[in-house]
Amino acid sequence: MATSSHDIEEGLALLPKFDADGLVTAVATDVVSGDVLMVAHMNAEALAKTIETGEAWYFSRSRKKLWKKGEESGHVQRVSELRVDCDQDAVWIKVEQLGPGACHTGRRSCFYRAAPLGQKAAVSLTFSDAEKTFDPGAVYRGKV
Amino acid sequence: MATSSHDIEEGLALLPKFDADGLVTAVATDVVSGDVLMVAHMNAEALAKTIETGEAWYFSRSRKKLWKKGEESGHVQRVSELRVDCDQDAVWIKVEQLGPGACHTGRRSCFYRAAPLGQKAAVSLTFSDAEKTFDPGAVYRGKV
Repeated sequence: MATSSHDIEEGLALLPKFDADGLVTAVATDVVSGDVLMVAHMNAEALAKTIETGEAWYFSRSRKKLWKKGEESGHVQRVSELRVDCDQDAVWIKVEQLGPGACHTGRRSCFYRAAPLGQKAAVSLTFSDAEKTFDPGAVYRGKV
Repeated sequence: MATSSHDIEEGLALLPKFDADGLVTAVATDVVSGDVLMVAHMNAEALAKTIETGEAWYFSRSRKKLWKKGEESGHVQRVSELRVDCDQDAVWIKVEQLGPGACHTGRRSCFYRAAPLGQKAAVSLTFSDAEKTFDPGAVYRGKV
């Protein structure tokens, strides 16, 4: 039997709607500050491992591989809650971010630049919470 | 000249990295509670309109059209801050959610179900913050 949108939206079965590449969007927020730390993707295996282990696993689209957050940097994300959205094509994880940050550029969050609102012309960003909290060259051994 | 990853990650030019469908991922969080309200997508026009107007515009992948959040329901999202991530393929908007909720199912947030952690077998979700805050049938005039 086909799964109805009612099953997906109102049911209690986990029925992830993976896209053509087999991925759902994953948003990680800091369980303390509420800040969005990063937006990434999970395939079925990454989602299953995240649920099973309580630590965040993702699928890297650029490297085409399963990836445990912090496997190289040590900046593991401990998941305190995992939620799915109405159509089950996105997951939200609230995490305790171990170490100084989530972003490969050396910041706590990947979202360290803001766009001004109310402008029609070309937009210049401004740095916001952009101070580096670690040296990515040292942490990732020159891979960044 | 090609845009370098350094320009994209460390520069102050808005250089969105749209995917093959011309979209970036957009995460809307409640500016007060910090909760993730919804995950959707923006094309170039939706992003420009969001920046220009300070209200959230998206691109609907299912309906293949530009869409102002709340155009039908009145549940407009006033954007208090818009940020881009390191590789500029995702935006995070902090919004004041007007009206009772963001989700087409009648809830405040689209993320009203949680998955238990530490389980290896088939996962059953639990409702969490799932009380309906409005009647979608009335608000969307039977389109849901």
